[in-house]
Amino acid sequence: MYVLVLNSGSSSLKYRVYEMPSEKLLAKGLVERIGLDEGRLIHQNGGDKHVVEQAIPDHGVAIELVVAALTDAGHGVIGSLDEIEAAGHRVVHGGDSFAQSVLIDGDVIRAIEENSEMAPLHNPPNLSGIYACQAKMPNVPNVAVFDTAFHQTMPDYAYTYAIPYKFYEEYKIRRYGFHGTSHRYVAHRAAELIERPLKHLEMVTCHLGNGSSICAVKYGKSIDTSLGFGTVTGIPMGTRTGDIDPCVITYLQRKLDLNKEEMDELIYKQSGLKGLSGYSDMRDVEEHALAEEKHSMLAMRIMAYSTRKYIGAYAAAMGFIDAIVFTAGIGENDPLLRSMVLNDLEFLGVQVDELANQAAVRGKEAEISTPGSRVKVLVIPTNEELMIARDTVEVTLLR
Amino acid sequence: MYVLVLNSGSSSLKYRVYEMPSEKLLAKGLVERIGLDEGRLIHQNGGDKHVVEQAIPDHGVAIELVVAALTDAGHGVIGSLDEIEAAGHRVVHGGDSFAQSVLIDGDVIRAIEENSEMAPLHNPPNLSGIYACQAKMPNVPNVAVFDTAFHQTMPDYAYTYAIPYKFYEEYKIRRYGFHGTSHRYVAHRAAELIERPLKHLEMVTCHLGNGSSICAVKYGKSIDTSLGFGTVTGIPMGTRTGDIDPCVITYLQRKLDLNKEEMDELIYKQSGLKGLSGYSDMRDVEEHALAEEKHSMLAMRIMAYSTRKYIGAYAAAMGFIDAIVFTAGIGENDPLLRSMVLNDLEFLGVQVDELANQAAVRGKEAEISTPGSRVKVLVIPTNEELMIARDTVEVTLLR
Repeated sequence: MYVLVLNSGSSSLKYRVYEMPSEKLLAKGLVERIGLDEGRLIHQNGGDKHVVEQAIPDHGVAIELVVAALTDAGHGVIGSLDEIEAAGHRVVHGGDSFAQSVLIDGDVIRAIEENSEMAPLHNPPNLSGIYACQAKMPNVPNVAVFDTAFHQTMPDYAYTYAIPYKFYEEYKIRRYGFHGTSHRYVAHRAAELIERPLKHLEMVTCHLGNGSSICAVKYGKSIDTSLGFGTVTGIPMGTRTGDIDPCVITYLQRKLDLNKEEMDELIYKQSGLKGLSGYSDMRDVEEHALAEEKHSMLAMRIMAYSTRKYIGAYAAAMGFIDAIVFTAGIGENDPLLRSMVLNDLEFLGVQVDELANQAAVRGKEAEISTPGSRVKVLVIPTNEELMIARDTVEVTLLR
Repeated sequence: MYVLVLNSGSSSLKYRVYEMPSEKLLAKGLVERIGLDEGRLIHQNGGDKHVVEQAIPDHGVAIELVVAALTDAGHGVIGSLDEIEAAGHRVVHGGDSFAQSVLIDGDVIRAIEENSEMAPLHNPPNLSGIYACQAKMPNVPNVAVFDTAFHQTMPDYAYTYAIPYKFYEEYKIRRYGFHGTSHRYVAHRAAELIERPLKHLEMVTCHLGNGSSICAVKYGKSIDTSLGFGTVTGIPMGTRTGDIDPCVITYLQRKLDLNKEEMDELIYKQSGLKGLSGYSDMRDVEEHALAEEKHSMLAMRIMAYSTRKYIGAYAAAMGFIDAIVFTAGIGENDPLLRSMVLNDLEFLGVQVDELANQAAVRGKEAEISTPGSRVKVLVIPTNEELMIARDTVEVTLLR
């Protein structure tokens, strides 16, 4: 069966088509500048690239373009729309309504809408993608795969903040965590590579990208993660703070007389690597750090040190650690950062094979610990889209 | 020589007199309700208690009462004021101006004043105590011992927040850490008990009281600590949040339309154990947790879990761990919490002797790990006043 996987942003839509269960990627693409005058679709069928430029007023037109590209006689990959048997949608915030992927119906849509208040930048465009599929492909079942779902297994003492309990009861303020599909994918893949059952393994998965989070995966379940109620805590990110003293927030509000929107802008857009070094992209930070530019060196050290502390914290949380996994843009491609994170952790049973570490870049799966290392250290390129396709098959077959 | 140790709050003043270098405590006491109509001094000379009740309009009168009590023919401990050779003052916030205790002069006072903006509840009353001593005991040198000084050895990557760097440069916003005198005292004492040089030891010291902080002490120096710019981060405290997502702050400000003062009240006074369980005193929380009251059980679990994660994080930060030390009200007296923190940490080399743990209460020094435990776990009653007395001697002798 063919499965369409969609990741809808406010002005973009990424898609992939998988043949399942073979997991063969047939096509992928990106619709950009939705809602603007000069939209664009970039469709890739194997090595070939096909570009369409036209006004794309909404997600409905975007889906029409995607379907046209997929069924095109020249660069298409399917004969007709009927061959798409299901569509899987990335949905960022499932709140505490969803602990797993679900078939989308009216109740699910209402729940996604309800959770929009906590994810105003993400859930509404995710819904636009779903509505567009329902309208343009009325016979195709839609499945929602939530970034938060994997973390719903956290115990209450890991997800509850020490603020008045009524704020959890009344406003659902708690740690949710994100990147769940990525953490779940690499945890499963790590178990395959280690050749031990996931349910016997305790691992820390490090999703280090423009957004980053660390997850404690105990026996296949998330028991803690570094992103929380919002998407800023944990380790510093491209432009987001990571963990920060709330007194800094209130002190800055007082000093600078910032309103709430300006404060959000500061926390989400002006902090992290960018705030420290001026560069939000780790590649720029590293280039300048290697040129001994003081602020970039500090930014790298802070990021590595924070990651290192989370690994230690989560090892203690689980009471053991079998494996550490690095994934996402930085995790997959930054041997120097990995080396700084893992240096001198032999007391935990971690021995890094520095040659293997340096060689593990550009989308390669690799074991970067020594053969004798008690803790396996793995680099695993993430594949959230494939995980969404798998879930979509599973959910639709269970109907 | 006799040393007077003072801890001045806004409406109270605690004092002790030590004979040094014997470290014999001669007397201690408390002046309460300074500035109110019905003030009180409670003076203790060994087992005897002596109470004076009268209006105490300011810290100057408080010091006069203390001097009178100390030199009283009946319950006094010294013949005349001339026998006090130095006074040591607890000062909460030394900013980045002081990495050690110093003799107080005009420059020091100006620096303490400058740091008052960051500690508006603490530094001004600390200064009142200093001014009172200068006025009433003009010939006695005064020494300032800062809560923050011990943590000034933190590396920049541990104290810098990932916000725009200019906020560190312009407003000195960074992690400072507090309870430094306590962490320093127990670290020194732990090395004595373990009978190994402090400079060879890596330890995590857990100051768990109404206010709490955890500290990574590597070779005798603080390299990281859980309190930050303000006094709320780290593990949850009696009424303070501990680590919390800044998005929760901005979300609540929006939801409840709280002003900054109300937000501070929420973060500092209504959160932590009190916010979760209704009780700010750990003894109450524990009593209700043992009666299986849900919110109190959750509060205890959160506190234990947070402490456990910090121990793991700081072990990873140091790359090793020789010892874990518990101190302060909860740390010294709560075997159940200690047990919850340390349970199942054998992978770190921690084995708890549960009988020794249960017996270690009420101000006893104790080793609560098994003889075979690679990591020594110690309970050490803190003694910040003695540390202040020692510093005061050292600083005044070095004049």
